[in-house]
Amino acid sequence: MTTDAASPTRIGRTRNIDRAARSAARGPAQLAFSVGHYSMPPLMPLSGDAIEAIHQASLTILEEIGIDLMSPAMREIAARCSADVRPGEERVRFGRAVVEHYIGLAPERFTIVGRGPGRDLQIGGENVVFGCVSSAPNCSGLGQDRHAGTFEDFRNFVKIGHGLNAINFFGGYPVEPVDLPASIRHLDCLREFALLTDKVFHPYCLGRQRIEDALEMMCILRGLTREQLRDVPSMYTVVNTSSPLRIEGAMLEGMIEMARARQPICITPFTLAGAMAPVTLAGSLAQQNAEALCGIVLTQMIEPGTPVLYGAYTSNVDMKTGAPAMGTPEYFRCVIASGQLARRYGIPYRSSGGNASTSADAQSIYETTFALWGAVLGHANLVMHAAGWLEGGLCASFEKLVVDAEILQGLAECFRPIEVNVAELALDAIRDVGPGGHFFGTPHTLERYQTAFYMPLVSDWQNYGNWVVAGKQDAMARASVIARHLIDTHQPQQLDPGIIDALDDFVARRKEEGGIVES
Amino acid sequence: MTTDAASPTRIGRTRNIDRAARSAARGPAQLAFSVGHYSMPPLMPLSGDAIEAIHQASLTILEEIGIDLMSPAMREIAARCSADVRPGEERVRFGRAVVEHYIGLAPERFTIVGRGPGRDLQIGGENVVFGCVSSAPNCSGLGQDRHAGTFEDFRNFVKIGHGLNAINFFGGYPVEPVDLPASIRHLDCLREFALLTDKVFHPYCLGRQRIEDALEMMCILRGLTREQLRDVPSMYTVVNTSSPLRIEGAMLEGMIEMARARQPICITPFTLAGAMAPVTLAGSLAQQNAEALCGIVLTQMIEPGTPVLYGAYTSNVDMKTGAPAMGTPEYFRCVIASGQLARRYGIPYRSSGGNASTSADAQSIYETTFALWGAVLGHANLVMHAAGWLEGGLCASFEKLVVDAEILQGLAECFRPIEVNVAELALDAIRDVGPGGHFFGTPHTLERYQTAFYMPLVSDWQNYGNWVVAGKQDAMARASVIARHLIDTHQPQQLDPGIIDALDDFVARRKEEGGIVES
Repeated sequence: MTTDAASPTRIGRTRNIDRAARSAARGPAQLAFSVGHYSMPPLMPLSGDAIEAIHQASLTILEEIGIDLMSPAMREIAARCSADVRPGEERVRFGRAVVEHYIGLAPERFTIVGRGPGRDLQIGGENVVFGCVSSAPNCSGLGQDRHAGTFEDFRNFVKIGHGLNAINFFGGYPVEPVDLPASIRHLDCLREFALLTDKVFHPYCLGRQRIEDALEMMCILRGLTREQLRDVPSMYTVVNTSSPLRIEGAMLEGMIEMARARQPICITPFTLAGAMAPVTLAGSLAQQNAEALCGIVLTQMIEPGTPVLYGAYTSNVDMKTGAPAMGTPEYFRCVIASGQLARRYGIPYRSSGGNASTSADAQSIYETTFALWGAVLGHANLVMHAAGWLEGGLCASFEKLVVDAEILQGLAECFRPIEVNVAELALDAIRDVGPGGHFFGTPHTLERYQTAFYMPLVSDWQNYGNWVVAGKQDAMARASVIARHLIDTHQPQQLDPGIIDALDDFVARRKEEGGIVES
Repeated sequence: MTTDAASPTRIGRTRNIDRAARSAARGPAQLAFSVGHYSMPPLMPLSGDAIEAIHQASLTILEEIGIDLMSPAMREIAARCSADVRPGEERVRFGRAVVEHYIGLAPERFTIVGRGPGRDLQIGGENVVFGCVSSAPNCSGLGQDRHAGTFEDFRNFVKIGHGLNAINFFGGYPVEPVDLPASIRHLDCLREFALLTDKVFHPYCLGRQRIEDALEMMCILRGLTREQLRDVPSMYTVVNTSSPLRIEGAMLEGMIEMARARQPICITPFTLAGAMAPVTLAGSLAQQNAEALCGIVLTQMIEPGTPVLYGAYTSNVDMKTGAPAMGTPEYFRCVIASGQLARRYGIPYRSSGGNASTSADAQSIYETTFALWGAVLGHANLVMHAAGWLEGGLCASFEKLVVDAEILQGLAECFRPIEVNVAELALDAIRDVGPGGHFFGTPHTLERYQTAFYMPLVSDWQNYGNWVVAGKQDAMARASVIARHLIDTHQPQQLDPGIIDALDDFVARRKEEGGIVES
């Protein structure tokens, strides 16, 4: 199944069913790949005063408490840019004016250029894009119980994610291929991303060298020089803070390389209320905001104008066990509030799907749905882990990736406006059918029935008797068939053989050098 | 487990955990029973012009096409009230001014008085109440495959629905006890409702006699005369239209009795786009609106001021098979639009949960969740079938009733405002913990952790290893345990023995008379 049709938008605009692709591969019905646009205003539960109070609290945190930046190189840059850096201390403080100045340099919107036609991701404003599950150490499904991820699993997830139009991009590796040594894993995985999909993918921000390798490979893949790449944002990475109020050296050093190459960076505090952040949501949001602003400021200190996202992942822990909870009401409320904060700064907003269920059960679905409704009602611009997550990110599920794609398609369709005009009001049809009739065979119906309604990917509406005769497949069983189909029918991307050779040469050389040796 | 604590509101107000009840019965954690209040404005995708166009189209339908009213008694009332009733015709037409006049007589809000303390349902305005699955002919769960409902199943559903605080009321019978003869089923079922729960319940609007029996039994239960009952709305019924543009005689004759007793009536067209309504959503909404307005007008013609709800159930059919689909994006869009229509008339709005899945699988959860998000974002005031539905209403699930109660609790919590003040912003705690610390043992956390976060009913956030050791129970398995617990610990309602005797005498007498003999 190919999904490279340039196409109109979702989340409340016209629908474009990917018919050509569908008939070509006899795959499942899907909406066409597209960047979504919000057609209704976001929820805004926090007053302007409340937003301002959170903002001021985070400025106080940055000014008075400070943040530990565990990279001498980053502290040096910060010191040159008027941050309060003290000799022999990792703690760095930022005056209010310094924060306000650098925040103001971040762009309001930007485009991550995809390799394939129509794969560009417009980030910011009313746009929204959804990404595949990332970074799970384990996976389950396709007949296998939960197990540590392998390179084969990684490849299968990429194939499915490539085939699902609802997936706009890949975050990190959908599942960690733990059968590959950590020192060279990024080389093999980035090569596979390049060969298996033309959608945007993402390198991990774990030290200077991994980012440097990713930049080189991206230049080979796109046929760009490093100087040219600066004008073509082609991938993005995520810098997670180590809450509370600390950023690891490897994250910061990767960030320096990404910003110098002017590739987009998403700053995401992982602020679990009650554990790494205060037990109160306002306190967690204040701390999240301080950490996010700090990271955003740093990107602009490295290179003004670097594309950056305001990431938020504030949820709560189960106070009985300390276990992280996701897709909870608290999570939802913070997702909505974080959208208000990001928009205050005019910086694109990143949110996430997520759930903490140990299996692809009802809990995993309702928690994921709550998280995704939060992202959409809070006007997130980029939604990571939007499909396929389980266990708070410790497991990726093949089947749930497909089911969640259905949820994403449904969400987009929910916001399509209802057209109201004479033809749509159908008074003539109602008159013709009259009391007690039916509309099945009327011209008004026949002219429209093929495209009138959303066609589901996974949902099955047949009656119970037919369902029993058809083998009693539940939604996960049907998703499994679709996942397997997408793997089996996946076509390698059409890359110039010279590019593949150059990528292979690069990977071989870097493996000979031992891959990552810096830490 | 008792749930009769009068308590504050949900959907965005304070939370009141039902601790006393919980410790008394060692039952599951639950929020207290309460009527919800919306704290944020509804979604309003349709413009004022679009709403007006739908309104005008429905007035044209009522004026020019008309509706078949299959009851001579109702046609007589309509004729007396200036409707266009023609001799020998079931078709009745309503002039625009007539419709506008009678719509204006319906109250904007009212209270259905519950038997137990704190059980009153405030209907209209920013209030919302959620009801148990109703009227399914089959049921499944608690170790049993799908089967035709029995009186024992009926009783078990009522016990569970009584025990779940998220369930504010009962619509019809959660499952039809098909082992009871149809002619006397209502007598046994209404008696059981009276004995098993103090929550509001509902008689079916199937002919004059069933409503008459229900009114008599309600008077016995509440110790009221029929005259007194007129001032105490104590139950509600649903009048479904037979779309397109027809209302059955039995429905109309039940409606006459209910309205004369001034008991609330919910008018709900069941307008499946592409089958009983036009394939276009605007057309289906116009027809739905015409049918709903017709029913509302009739209630006011019978008895001005009768409490009435604007019910809506517009969804679509699968155009390949004709099977009804529910919880679809089209359903969601119509739920939101219908809220705008109901509010245009200032009449309380009834919506529904719902899904068309044949099993309690992922589809059943995401479709239900979409339907419930629609109800909440569209500001429904009364939500029927909010928990426990499967198969478009052909099956009720014991386990899903519990899981959906968790979803309802979660929805309410999602709209709790985030408090923002000095204590909640927690700057002192953030300062004390500092970079790299944790918040588990801080005084700020210890003072708040017991009530800081929503405590789930079904969700399990323990890690994978512990979950395996605990027996790998998924959400439905955990819900099954809770359902069984609620059945086993159910306490009969404390009714005056004289009332029980009087109810039993009435039921015995009516059974001797043969129950329903009118049709």
